Amino acid sequence: MTSTPIADLWPTLSGGADARPEAAHRLLQAAVESFAERGFHATTTRDIATAAGMSPAALYIHYQSKAALLAEISQAGHAATLSLVRAAASAEGGPAERMRHLVEQFTAWHARARTVGRVVNYELHALPEDAYAVVAALRLDIEREVSGLIEEGAASGAFQVAEVRTAARAVTSLGIDVSRWYTDRSSETPEELGRRYGELVLRMLGA
Amino acid sequence: MTSTPIADLWPTLSGGADARPEAAHRLLQAAVESFAERGFHATTTRDIATAAGMSPAALYIHYQSKAALLAEISQAGHAATLSLVRAAASAEGGPAERMRHLVEQFTAWHARARTVGRVVNYELHALPEDAYAVVAALRLDIEREVSGLIEEGAASGAFQVAEVRTAARAVTSLGIDVSRWYTDRSSETPEELGRRYGELVLRMLGA
Repeated sequence: MTSTPIADLWPTLSGGADARPEAAHRLLQAAVESFAERGFHATTTRDIATAAGMSPAALYIHYQSKAALLAEISQAGHAATLSLVRAAASAEGGPAERMRHLVEQFTAWHARARTVGRVVNYELHALPEDAYAVVAALRLDIEREVSGLIEEGAASGAFQVAEVRTAARAVTSLGIDVSRWYTDRSSETPEELGRRYGELVLRMLGA
Repeated sequence: MTSTPIADLWPTLSGGADARPEAAHRLLQAAVESFAERGFHATTTRDIATAAGMSPAALYIHYQSKAALLAEISQAGHAATLSLVRAAASAEGGPAERMRHLVEQFTAWHARARTVGRVVNYELHALPEDAYAVVAALRLDIEREVSGLIEEGAASGAFQVAEVRTAARAVTSLGIDVSRWYTDRSSETPEELGRRYGELVLRMLGA
């Protein structure tokens, strides 16, 4: 488990008015790695505190529970992917060009941030109810952006698609699953993989 | 977590010379559900025994450890998918027809057997070394069947593919990820989803 660009998910960590303390940063990083390696249920707050070089008491200054850490990780990860999907979908250019860019970005993110990606996608059932509601809304927004772009392309004749929902599901699913299989030993860089997946998806959509 | 057709994975359960005792069947079912719900690391042998209506001592008559249960589940799950992939790839017909059938079968399996599919694909790191070697060989065989069929189609002009390995990865990845998102509330039956994914994959391969 290496190269999780966690600072990309919490831009406020690096400064600004609402910057999080460096200790919170270390706790988030330690929680991501512990959850990804052993699963949420098998990780204790003591494991996370130790990995962050703190006492459990110091952890509780920043987070009430390991579930609060999971909630912040899951919300930030989903917000980050929604933001790149939204930017690509609403950029200049035709539907095919925007879809290519969307898949390139979404795929590369799941390769680079694979450790965060695993936690965010495989520990949904462990979220507290209120955090789950927030994350479910973000997931729905991601799906809507992708479906909306496919619909737009189908309407303009740029895409030929039989079932918009199934096609949208396939597009996001391909990207999300990258977090499962991508490793440092993968032969393609995240950007190369993104470009190749962009090609495959455009074909899939009959562009 | 419902409808895991675990008996499909262990055909010998239902009879024959090397049939497993009914107790082993119950333990495998309980282990699949516990691992899928809480993760391998957070599951104890006591959890599994209790879910199977047995004492931990009774569990040890059949399995030395929870890792032995995971190993059997993982090997059987991978063997089942390899077998359907191999049957489809070596059937009668042209590459496109065989690929369509392969994707239909592979997708429908991951929707139907989603609980087993999750354990098999997300708990690989928890396998003991010797079991991991067996499973890695099965995974490689699955990849080779898919790549081989794509290469055959590319050579005969049935497919137009830039990168065989990336395309093969995308085909298996789409099917595997079905286990993550498919639920009883999904609007498509496993067979419908398989047919739609079969269409999408043929397009992706330029058929």
